[in-house]
Amino acid sequence: MNPFTNDPGERISQWGENHLLGQILEWLGGVVPPAPEGPGEDCARIPGGIGRAITTDPVWYRRHFDDDLSPEAVGRKLVVRNLSDLAAAGARPEAGLLSLFAPDQTSRRWLQRCVESIGQTAAEYQLKIVGGDLSQTPSDLGLNLTVWGALDHPSPGRGKAEPGDTLWVSGQLGGSLLGPHWQFLPRLAEGDWLAASGSVTAMMDLSDGLAADLPRLLGQRGASLDLHLLPLRPEADIAAQRSGQPPWLHGWSDGEDYELLWALHHSIPPEQFLAAWTSRFKVPATCIGHVVERADRDALLQFVGDRIPPEGGGFQHFRP
Amino acid sequence: MNPFTNDPGERISQWGENHLLGQILEWLGGVVPPAPEGPGEDCARIPGGIGRAITTDPVWYRRHFDDDLSPEAVGRKLVVRNLSDLAAAGARPEAGLLSLFAPDQTSRRWLQRCVESIGQTAAEYQLKIVGGDLSQTPSDLGLNLTVWGALDHPSPGRGKAEPGDTLWVSGQLGGSLLGPHWQFLPRLAEGDWLAASGSVTAMMDLSDGLAADLPRLLGQRGASLDLHLLPLRPEADIAAQRSGQPPWLHGWSDGEDYELLWALHHSIPPEQFLAAWTSRFKVPATCIGHVVERADRDALLQFVGDRIPPEGGGFQHFRP
Repeated sequence: MNPFTNDPGERISQWGENHLLGQILEWLGGVVPPAPEGPGEDCARIPGGIGRAITTDPVWYRRHFDDDLSPEAVGRKLVVRNLSDLAAAGARPEAGLLSLFAPDQTSRRWLQRCVESIGQTAAEYQLKIVGGDLSQTPSDLGLNLTVWGALDHPSPGRGKAEPGDTLWVSGQLGGSLLGPHWQFLPRLAEGDWLAASGSVTAMMDLSDGLAADLPRLLGQRGASLDLHLLPLRPEADIAAQRSGQPPWLHGWSDGEDYELLWALHHSIPPEQFLAAWTSRFKVPATCIGHVVERADRDALLQFVGDRIPPEGGGFQHFRP
Repeated sequence: MNPFTNDPGERISQWGENHLLGQILEWLGGVVPPAPEGPGEDCARIPGGIGRAITTDPVWYRRHFDDDLSPEAVGRKLVVRNLSDLAAAGARPEAGLLSLFAPDQTSRRWLQRCVESIGQTAAEYQLKIVGGDLSQTPSDLGLNLTVWGALDHPSPGRGKAEPGDTLWVSGQLGGSLLGPHWQFLPRLAEGDWLAASGSVTAMMDLSDGLAADLPRLLGQRGASLDLHLLPLRPEADIAAQRSGQPPWLHGWSDGEDYELLWALHHSIPPEQFLAAWTSRFKVPATCIGHVVERADRDALLQFVGDRIPPEGGGFQHFRP
């Protein structure tokens, strides 16, 4: 049977990524355990005396990078986007498996520069590469990394935030494709500290943009947000000049921020938390709103003030 | 920089898979630990109280399967070829991560049938799917599985066979593409028992054919083989009728056998081993030769009798 179809109504691109993922989990059936053991977090768990978090992410030519990006940037991006998932689980990077999916016409020089950068970036983070795979594709070029790390503390995970918990982001958001999407520093020390605090009720990394990721963090809850509070990168301004949209909208929906998003238990005063954070980290932490009870599906997000984004936003593969 | 090149001399396809792998390991540099912790085995190791073996393998449309194969067969193949690597490490399957790499035109019906088969095959082997990833490719369709399993015993691994050790294969070889390449049963119970015996000095699974895989098992050693002893599948005869080559040559170099290949310590009499094996397993085990000292690079393989294969053989990605 041909796995491709000419009938537009039969294509997987008719579904958004979220719907497709739901379908795949349903098709897999009983072999998929419920979260937190199963899918739905930035990382899966490997149980044991020392628990581990494990995650897998690729980079694809013409999807995650193009000719404008140097091979060194591609290699760095592959490593740090995986480490960002470990950071969101509060895990300490240990080792990984690297897979190359490449067609015949792949350039040796390009590959050498990319793989050397993977090695150098992995070394920066004490990540060992202990195996992997090599396979030939008909035409697409991709690299996949699977990484795991030790969990010194339980991961906050998603969906357990309570009404009144405050919502925070690390760093700054928006305009990531102008450079930060491969230059960013995975928030490993910050994620470890947040997981160790015992005061964080939910945590994830921002890969698809706040607009798409915040609902994933909230699960059955809603949020009240003031988008005047969004910490914006200088690149969000540049992106705004090009797009004609306001910078805060880029911060809301651009994606590839690779910053942490977390909910802080309502018993912790924000100023107390911020003082502890600031004494430890140079990167800023910003409170952007709080978790609320949710009356119905439409009340997922409430916006304080005059910055109200359009529905949707954020990145989805296979956007219908 | 464009990762593709029009200059044939600059393409990675100028190198065979073995050379390309060596280059990649060199480029990665210091983050690659030596075997057995690092690459060079069927599985990598996750250390800990309960040690684990981990491996990753894809299936690509137009490389590992085509329109002749049903989506159910593709899903089954993805699972069992990964489990075969766990079997070679003597590991008990625990869980895995499933990644889908798919272009827009992928058929929902095809994907559903394939993924349902992945779920059913995983269930047969008590393998849980605990996470993964979904990404859109420009044109190629692939699925990747990363699986890990518990090691109740140290894995024999490769390269530690000694002169006089006997060489064995499970099952039958040859003609795999006529059906066995997705219908085979991963030799998990056999691999676990062989690893537990303490008498196996090296073990791997046959994925690229004896011709390509045996040198990998031997490392610095050589082997003396009698290809009259090769246990051949009925499919090797059918393949021979089509190719005009003798069936034993198909058993030697076809690949995708997914049987176990191991070296048994020279202190164990073959007939004693065979009696123990036969009392336990229905699948045959066959002694095909023994390990020898190697005088020089050219003396890797010696053939007893009149069945002498041509140089090379076996499957390599990126064959130059």
